[in-house]
Amino acid sequence: MPDRANFRVGERDVPEPSAGQLLVRVIYLSMDPSMRSYVHNVASFWPRVPPGEPMQGRGLAQVVTSKHADFAPGDYVYGPVGWREWSVIDGAAVDFRPDPDLCPLRAWMGPLGTTGVTAWLGLFEIARPIAGEAVLVTTAAGAVGSVVVRLAKLRGARVVAVAGSDDKTAYCVDRLGADTAINYRTVGDLNAAVAEACPQGIDVFFDNVGGDQLDAGLRAMRVGGRVVICGTISQPNAPEPPQGPRVERSILTKRLSVRGILLNDFTHLHDQARRELAHWINAGALQIEEDVLDGLENAPIGLERVLRGQNIGKQIVQVGPEQTA
Amino acid sequence: MPDRANFRVGERDVPEPSAGQLLVRVIYLSMDPSMRSYVHNVASFWPRVPPGEPMQGRGLAQVVTSKHADFAPGDYVYGPVGWREWSVIDGAAVDFRPDPDLCPLRAWMGPLGTTGVTAWLGLFEIARPIAGEAVLVTTAAGAVGSVVVRLAKLRGARVVAVAGSDDKTAYCVDRLGADTAINYRTVGDLNAAVAEACPQGIDVFFDNVGGDQLDAGLRAMRVGGRVVICGTISQPNAPEPPQGPRVERSILTKRLSVRGILLNDFTHLHDQARRELAHWINAGALQIEEDVLDGLENAPIGLERVLRGQNIGKQIVQVGPEQTA
Repeated sequence: MPDRANFRVGERDVPEPSAGQLLVRVIYLSMDPSMRSYVHNVASFWPRVPPGEPMQGRGLAQVVTSKHADFAPGDYVYGPVGWREWSVIDGAAVDFRPDPDLCPLRAWMGPLGTTGVTAWLGLFEIARPIAGEAVLVTTAAGAVGSVVVRLAKLRGARVVAVAGSDDKTAYCVDRLGADTAINYRTVGDLNAAVAEACPQGIDVFFDNVGGDQLDAGLRAMRVGGRVVICGTISQPNAPEPPQGPRVERSILTKRLSVRGILLNDFTHLHDQARRELAHWINAGALQIEEDVLDGLENAPIGLERVLRGQNIGKQIVQVGPEQTA
Repeated sequence: MPDRANFRVGERDVPEPSAGQLLVRVIYLSMDPSMRSYVHNVASFWPRVPPGEPMQGRGLAQVVTSKHADFAPGDYVYGPVGWREWSVIDGAAVDFRPDPDLCPLRAWMGPLGTTGVTAWLGLFEIARPIAGEAVLVTTAAGAVGSVVVRLAKLRGARVVAVAGSDDKTAYCVDRLGADTAINYRTVGDLNAAVAEACPQGIDVFFDNVGGDQLDAGLRAMRVGGRVVICGTISQPNAPEPPQGPRVERSILTKRLSVRGILLNDFTHLHDQARRELAHWINAGALQIEEDVLDGLENAPIGLERVLRGQNIGKQIVQVGPEQTA
């Protein structure tokens, strides 16, 4: 598990952008659990950052110099800018172009960004809860989970939130609108707590955690339930998985659908997701829930907060102002 | 695990059919792994048979007396006739009506019956293999698996069959058309054998077994792979599942879809499946693969054969002639 001691601040020359590249001024950095893999020895589908090299990461930035025909100075971009104040990236590597006229820039870091679109895809494209169904959400106070809770409530589902502190469970119920919430760290018997919170069983389980929390949810699934595996933050990046209760009998007898999702497998749906999410944000039905640290030097603390479950809402680090004078 | 010593042959009066019921003459009984649950102490979604009562089971029969407006003497029916020579069943409980003019009656016990339709649904409605993809099938010489192998080959997939004897693996390759086959009992390192047989990884895994065979397949899945959990014959009917390697990291990083299926969740597709299956049977592309025992008294042996993996093709027991003089 990386912590702040693994990082140091340094200075490098900013290179000139080549043809097809952009020089950008970084505004916000996104802190995501998957970044653990960037600095880990075990192979995963994410690229690794060699020791001594600048940390990778995605964020929102403004174009200063463009050598790419599709971008002009002043444009906002979201992409692999890294942990830097100034960055040179390929125009082709830009993930999306935040439009401040559609929604405030910060919304593009959360509910309208990668985490919000991930929540929309997992819930509405894969799990498809119906009004009145029971939805269980883990890391419910986090960047993806908080949007899942809100979207499931918009769809008329009954939502049970799982989070790791009393502040977070209160936040899930009072602010996000979950029907009930479980603090998995203090509840004791998690299986019993989930069963009690879902007396009719769970129709949709949106899991960002794995391990004991996944086991507790699977145990309470109803026949025909849908399970979205969106994250496995409790699980080690080890080549051989640890042991746990076998799931095939549950999957068969309850005819479950269990599916792992990744945002970029669904690029054809990103625009649709963003249009719907922006509609709800602008209507006041989906708030921007962000946990902001100021200054690039605090990025390691931001990553620590995410990996230790200390953030409430999307963890971001502000590197520079939204607009320059 | 039930065996022949748990059963005895007895005589009872055949009741008169009441309104809505049929008196039928049993022709074929189907022997299925799920019947283990009928005589087991652990709750499952199947009804249990109390000790001393006639064994439950499905089969093909001919109507002798009808008290139901939709059925006439001479009609063929498939339904919960039980292990009997004569049986009274509710007309509403009939699963389907085998039509000897569409396909020979025996086809309705296998490729056109519950096992063939299950294979069609799991493969074509859920997993949807594309020509050139790699399909792994367990119990590939069994009632469902043999149809899966044939259907996957018709779709242009590369098929790797797993079975439990050299006779069965030879049958899978020579008769069913599998590209290669693995004898899981003698192969030693099953993980290595599956990996070697599927050097590019597995796109579709149709599993009827669970346990080590499921683990070996999951380990070799490709990104975007689809896993159909159609049976778990290796797994105990215990209230608490045994331990095994955790699957959530694989499901997430490979974005797998893992789904449990049951025939009767898809009744709206049964007719479509039967029309397509009959087309291939009549075209000679899908053979009737059955393992037939004669005589009701041999039904316990038939069940033993299925539960011990001794049958090749669909195990059935012939109780009476297809037609009476």
